[in-house]
Amino acid sequence: MPGDGIGKEVTTWGKKVLEKVTANSGVHFSFDEALIGHTAIEATGNPLPDETLEKLKASDAVLFGAVGHPKYDNDPSLKVRPEQGLLKMRKELGLYANLRPIKLFDELIHASSIKPEILKGSDILFFRELTGDVYFGEPRERRDNGNVALDTMIYSKFEVRRIAKRAFEAARTRRKKVTSVDKANVLESSRLWREVVQEMAKDYPDVEVEHMFIDTAAMKLIKDPRSFDVVLTGNLFGDILTDEASQIAGSMGMLASASLGDITGLYEPIHGSAYDIAGKGVANPLASILSVALMLDISFNLKAESERVIKAVEATLKEGFRTRDIADSTTPADKIIGTDAMGEKIV
Amino acid sequence: MPGDGIGKEVTTWGKKVLEKVTANSGVHFSFDEALIGHTAIEATGNPLPDETLEKLKASDAVLFGAVGHPKYDNDPSLKVRPEQGLLKMRKELGLYANLRPIKLFDELIHASSIKPEILKGSDILFFRELTGDVYFGEPRERRDNGNVALDTMIYSKFEVRRIAKRAFEAARTRRKKVTSVDKANVLESSRLWREVVQEMAKDYPDVEVEHMFIDTAAMKLIKDPRSFDVVLTGNLFGDILTDEASQIAGSMGMLASASLGDITGLYEPIHGSAYDIAGKGVANPLASILSVALMLDISFNLKAESERVIKAVEATLKEGFRTRDIADSTTPADKIIGTDAMGEKIV
Ligand SMILES: CC(C)[C@H](C(=O)O)[C@@H](O)C(=O)O
Ligand SMILES: CC(C)[C@H](C(=O)O)[C@@H](O)C(=O)O
Repeated sequence: MPGDGIGKEVTTWGKKVLEKVTANSGVHFSFDEALIGHTAIEATGNPLPDETLEKLKASDAVLFGAVGHPKYDNDPSLKVRPEQGLLKMRKELGLYANLRPIKLFDELIHASSIKPEILKGSDILFFRELTGDVYFGEPRERRDNGNVALDTMIYSKFEVRRIAKRAFEAARTRRKKVTSVDKANVLESSRLWREVVQEMAKDYPDVEVEHMFIDTAAMKLIKDPRSFDVVLTGNLFGDILTDEASQIAGSMGMLASASLGDITGLYEPIHGSAYDIAGKGVANPLASILSVALMLDISFNLKAESERVIKAVEATLKEGFRTRDIADSTTPADKIIGTDAMGEKIV
Repeated sequence: MPGDGIGKEVTTWGKKVLEKVTANSGVHFSFDEALIGHTAIEATGNPLPDETLEKLKASDAVLFGAVGHPKYDNDPSLKVRPEQGLLKMRKELGLYANLRPIKLFDELIHASSIKPEILKGSDILFFRELTGDVYFGEPRERRDNGNVALDTMIYSKFEVRRIAKRAFEAARTRRKKVTSVDKANVLESSRLWREVVQEMAKDYPDVEVEHMFIDTAAMKLIKDPRSFDVVLTGNLFGDILTDEASQIAGSMGMLASASLGDITGLYEPIHGSAYDIAGKGVANPLASILSVALMLDISFNLKAESERVIKAVEATLKEGFRTRDIADSTTPADKIIGTDAMGEKIV
């Protein structure tokens, strides 16, 4: 499901890598394609056509690109919008757990705006709740002749518990620390969040739990990224923090994500549709390719294949090849390559 | 109004600097003191006693420390909380415009986790809306036997217009660029925000206006801080972005803020009560002292005096003196000084 903007360009390479890495493994994937976002609106008038939803529900896993288009960003009054397709899909597929691993490839330690000595060894796994919060709360509407607009920020204990459980379990397989991020000094929904996480922490005495306000977290993420292991947070705060954390990995172009629920798993880069560079052949396909690594691991339990994809990325970076977004002033001009050349290298 | 935690320690020095810098200027300040936050709860049971509010309303300007205490953070079920005092005060005094200048002192360019070449020349002025948004929207409550909690994110056109006006006017005296930050691809309140700012932009053809999603802004602030001049945003997004942006200035301990409205002006460091270091004499008083510089400039139009305070901070940093938070590995041990020693230097 390529979606909009650079979604198409990068997803092509995710798919090719998926086919290549499993070519001799006895695993055979069958593929289908579906429309979403602006592309779907143009074709059908609907950002998430029923046909798309049917196809997704019938899939073991979904490789997704991005949605969004400047046309809608510039005109907030448009009623049908690409992001509605994305949000409806997340809700309909029950994709409540958005995993965003922030892993810094050694070779890219100089590509970040943050100092190498601050970054070195950073390895954060975000659990962003994806089907609740102010993204979905009702009412969300205009009032008073359009002079007032409101959204509803809302969480239930059940919603907090199920994402927190995943975060605690994951922490056990890692450095055994969970940082739960909220704004409990101001928000009622955050106080509920914090209460639930505090209560659940009792069941995981081996995991260290830290509660942090979102403003402090946004600061500390850059000041001391190594102090984070697993970060557990809501939909809105997770959206903000993971984009910010992309700078730890050098570029948004490197970050993959998995959205998990009960029906299927969805894998996508965290970068968006990036219309400013769409069609120019310069988008970084590595986030889509690393999304495939996550898919192989999580949805198909093909750990060796997943590892091979990551190793291929490592090796290509080690050879010095860079897309524009991860190049720095020391990268020789002939090592700065486009989407397709980078995709080929990985394949 | 010292408030809680390190608030007392740093405000002492803000006040001393205020007295000192105006000693020979024919200006005479008269001072009063008032309770807020945890300190006020302990003394009166109320985080914002009526007496405090009366005193504030009678003041030409307020020098404020911070509120907050770990006791409440660790127990989200407590009904009376320090932050209620802060929020009620902002509302009652109509302090809708929170100005947070992010200015990097040359001497501190190495104190940040961000690379000096990325930071060099950064100079951002935030306009954070301070009396609306999910901080104040109603309903904010528990439902369903306490199993659900919700807050209301809400903006009116009037609220957006008055803060946007201040941001546009300020941009005219600076580099003539406003970045308005919202989440208009998801939130109805953000779409209203964007519409209003788009409409107002027509009255300021000499100011360049850029609209950015909060997730992108959180990323770009670290990736390319120099691309921002004036940032205009809502209460919640402003809370997050300004804490994050403190890393541009090296430390939260350096950042002052002004909260303006119709009745009086309030000046405070953006750091919080920081109970972990309270009473140890190590808190950085420079944010409180720089808040006094803002007060002299904005509330009293004493520009020369304001400049002298800033120059004193510059000179002291140039002499190599640092509080712990702004020291780095090259700072000699005898130049790392405490709150009082730093305050004395500035005086
Ligand atoms: C496109 C947008 C609606 C989306 C979100 O806010 O969730 C994106 O930023 C993301 O993080 O997946
Ligand atoms: C203490 C807290 C309620 C406050 C806020 O969120 O506004 C603080 O973080 C600030 O930025 O002044």
